[in-house]
Amino acid sequence: MIYLDNAATTRPYDEVIDLFDNLCKNSYFNPSAIYNEAFDLAKQIDEARGFFLRAFHADIDKDKVIFTSGATESNNIAIFGSTFNKKGKYLFSSGEHPAVFNCAMNLKMQGYDVDFIPLSHNGEVDYDKLAKMCDSNVCFVSIMLVSNETGAINDIEKVSRIIKTASPRCILHIDAVQGFGKIDINVKKWGVDLMSLSSHKIGGLKGCGALYISSRVNLKTTIFGGGQEYNLRSGTVNAPAILSFRLASEISLDNMKQNFDKVQQLKQYLLDKIKNNNNITVVSSDSASPYIVSLLFRGNRGETIQRYLNSKGILVSTGSACSSRKMGNRILQSMGYNNTDIIGALRVSFYSNNTTSDIDALCQELDNYSTNINA
Amino acid sequence: MIYLDNAATTRPYDEVIDLFDNLCKNSYFNPSAIYNEAFDLAKQIDEARGFFLRAFHADIDKDKVIFTSGATESNNIAIFGSTFNKKGKYLFSSGEHPAVFNCAMNLKMQGYDVDFIPLSHNGEVDYDKLAKMCDSNVCFVSIMLVSNETGAINDIEKVSRIIKTASPRCILHIDAVQGFGKIDINVKKWGVDLMSLSSHKIGGLKGCGALYISSRVNLKTTIFGGGQEYNLRSGTVNAPAILSFRLASEISLDNMKQNFDKVQQLKQYLLDKIKNNNNITVVSSDSASPYIVSLLFRGNRGETIQRYLNSKGILVSTGSACSSRKMGNRILQSMGYNNTDIIGALRVSFYSNNTTSDIDALCQELDNYSTNINA
Repeated sequence: MIYLDNAATTRPYDEVIDLFDNLCKNSYFNPSAIYNEAFDLAKQIDEARGFFLRAFHADIDKDKVIFTSGATESNNIAIFGSTFNKKGKYLFSSGEHPAVFNCAMNLKMQGYDVDFIPLSHNGEVDYDKLAKMCDSNVCFVSIMLVSNETGAINDIEKVSRIIKTASPRCILHIDAVQGFGKIDINVKKWGVDLMSLSSHKIGGLKGCGALYISSRVNLKTTIFGGGQEYNLRSGTVNAPAILSFRLASEISLDNMKQNFDKVQQLKQYLLDKIKNNNNITVVSSDSASPYIVSLLFRGNRGETIQRYLNSKGILVSTGSACSSRKMGNRILQSMGYNNTDIIGALRVSFYSNNTTSDIDALCQELDNYSTNINA
Repeated sequence: MIYLDNAATTRPYDEVIDLFDNLCKNSYFNPSAIYNEAFDLAKQIDEARGFFLRAFHADIDKDKVIFTSGATESNNIAIFGSTFNKKGKYLFSSGEHPAVFNCAMNLKMQGYDVDFIPLSHNGEVDYDKLAKMCDSNVCFVSIMLVSNETGAINDIEKVSRIIKTASPRCILHIDAVQGFGKIDINVKKWGVDLMSLSSHKIGGLKGCGALYISSRVNLKTTIFGGGQEYNLRSGTVNAPAILSFRLASEISLDNMKQNFDKVQQLKQYLLDKIKNNNNITVVSSDSASPYIVSLLFRGNRGETIQRYLNSKGILVSTGSACSSRKMGNRILQSMGYNNTDIIGALRVSFYSNNTTSDIDALCQELDNYSTNINA
């Protein structure tokens, strides 16, 4: 099997699974309990908060990290926890993952003033249009760091400058799920107030995520219960998953530069192999994250190609796992592609364990597919 | 180490950890993806829904089970998802876990008509007072099956009859976290509409729970994203944790009767050993779940005893992990105990792997403690 759908989820690192296993057997206590074994776990979790804060250059004394059940929950907490201002304007990029986009749609339905920032043809937000949309009423902006559909990397520092010039008290949230562990993040330099992270996209386990909260922000509680995670995310603290997330992040960050270079070469290797195929349009720009390559196959259904590849043991997707069972592709539409093009969309997404031979096999089967349908 | 805090969390079964390990290594796919490997996982998860529906005698064709990140999330989804009727009356038992109680407090703060049903001295809701509180305006009632503080078992069938006589369309939610896998649950016979379950209280992993939803109920979406779990709980489906939850439930249900009898004997063994100690009041009634025994030590601080036991390798708690780091005990107060008594509260909670020698050790150290403080 050749797995090229790493933007949907990654195989957890063996070390991560082993740590989880060990914690479940030997440190299964409830971290909120009041004996030493639980205090020790709670301390390890607090150390993990410090680890994450340092990892993305936050203020380790003043800022917070809370652990959640995943990035969808982080996004929901960040967005609904920021709805203090019924009269303010809430801006979201048109490229957001459903976990942000559908929160925005709900806010709109509730009567909030919600607007969507258009995308440029390269998949990044249109910075000029963003500047025109910003005024002193803007109180909350959510823009993803790396697109899960195209790999497009938004210039968050530029975004931050634009919105905070217009509205200094505006809160900036970024969904950094496809960026963390792959590109260097600096929340202070970039002016980020809230940031959502996921464990299972970087070799950690499913069911765990985090939310960075700068000291500028006081979120409202949106999940009620035992008061865990600064009363922002009640529920028994999932210590084994959180400590495993920390380990997966350490492995990813320690190897970030060399993994990036390796995956950049994989992307280039793929693009070189398909460059003479006039039926293929490469959606992802050169400046996009190399981990995600979005392609359009003219005159073909992405889904049909994807199924053919599946039958040959190659796993790719037609878009994000969260949107691919639905019709259309909101993101590619926002980038200016028409529905005839979009129907041929295929997403290839790498992780550091992929190799050039995976790409050879993919390209060989893409050739076989073309030969078959033309025969 | 002697672990007697199983109401806070249980050690996962070895088979459950092994299954999780295997799924993380070999079936790490995103169940929402569109290849056969993902379809297979999605099918296993749907089969798990059927397993749970059968386990508590639901209608497997019409009712639903959704998987969540735990019982706190299940409770939040059940309660906030049921807030259709701004003019209706919402009733909660005074004995609820913070994951229900604090949702109720938030509803009240939002302006909903919220009231709390008093408890009897045995820890069950006061059925007569409930009957007096019920009228045709009551639209939602939440009462736990088994108290996490005292083990008191509410007669849900009786509750259901009372509330549905007064208000036939009323929705009944039960938090069954401390009951599922330990006592037989029959949602149809009992007239339950919504029920919250947790994995880590019955030998499963943390970070996983479920919500039963009868076909009578159409919940509002409260978590937004990719639309997973019938659009009621978006977020990547945590297949390894869900399938592990199923396995833990199978093990628990297959051994439910014999485990109950064993734990009933453990409880009796403990009560027999302490019955001549006039300083100890047993809060838990004879009809309570044997898995949880609540004791009051007159003239002592439960916390001090708990710490002494901790130093001897015996882990018990002064109350639920979610409340024990706070002052007071709302539940025991509702049962009519005064604060002087409550300060001496200790909770001993069993699982099927406990033995009489654990209780011997506990009682020996309780004796040593008394000797020490009297010396």
